[in-house]
Amino acid sequence: MPSEQIMKEAMQAYIDGFNRADAGAVVALYADDAIVEDPVGSKPKQGRAEIARFYQMSIATGAKLKLAAPIRGSHGNAAAMAFDVELKMPEGQALIRVIDVMTFDDAGKFSSMRAYWAPGDMEVIGAK
Amino acid sequence: MPSEQIMKEAMQAYIDGFNRADAGAVVALYADDAIVEDPVGSKPKQGRAEIARFYQMSIATGAKLKLAAPIRGSHGNAAAMAFDVELKMPEGQALIRVIDVMTFDDAGKFSSMRAYWAPGDMEVIGAK
Repeated sequence: MPSEQIMKEAMQAYIDGFNRADAGAVVALYADDAIVEDPVGSKPKQGRAEIARFYQMSIATGAKLKLAAPIRGSHGNAAAMAFDVELKMPEGQALIRVIDVMTFDDAGKFSSMRAYWAPGDMEVIGAK
Repeated sequence: MPSEQIMKEAMQAYIDGFNRADAGAVVALYADDAIVEDPVGSKPKQGRAEIARFYQMSIATGAKLKLAAPIRGSHGNAAAMAFDVELKMPEGQALIRVIDVMTFDDAGKFSSMRAYWAPGDMEVIGAK
């Protein structure tokens, strides 16, 4: 099992890679056969090709991620973080409040990511 | 599946019941056969009796919960929230940074709670 520090560093690298618009760096944090369920309750994406498409599209929106509180670890192979996604929508500047939970393989790669956000967690916060 | 609003209200009721030191109200939010894994990576507690003992002990410490960011829903039967546990430890006033993920049954009761926090998420913040 990876250490708490390794898991938290990978979570931070996810935020930083996303905000650099570096989809390759984000996808490299995942194991080959990883699962992404974003939002929780939607059909999961599985494997590097589907996950790469997902991040290329997400990053192309210009969205940026800001931690809302420090990253949490666990006593197992998992960590979690609350953040806000800031993005432009047709209605104006918006944010989506999200909590991501990642599980890890022994190599310290994400084996799964599950993103908790609901329709009511999206909010338009500024003019167009 | 319960609505986003019902799930978020149950999460808030959990915080409020805990902070009123009302273990009964907290336990009543759970389904009879629910599982509590706190912290993630520890042996789960299962069923109302074990869960009641857990909250009676937790609340008896005098700990209080403060949301660190708004509660998140999902597009499935789950919700998540980041909060800080404020408590007195032998070393002084302390906090534990936690993210709880709850899943729900169709009646709107918690079928599981998983609490993400690691040893490094505990911090002594004040004098004795």
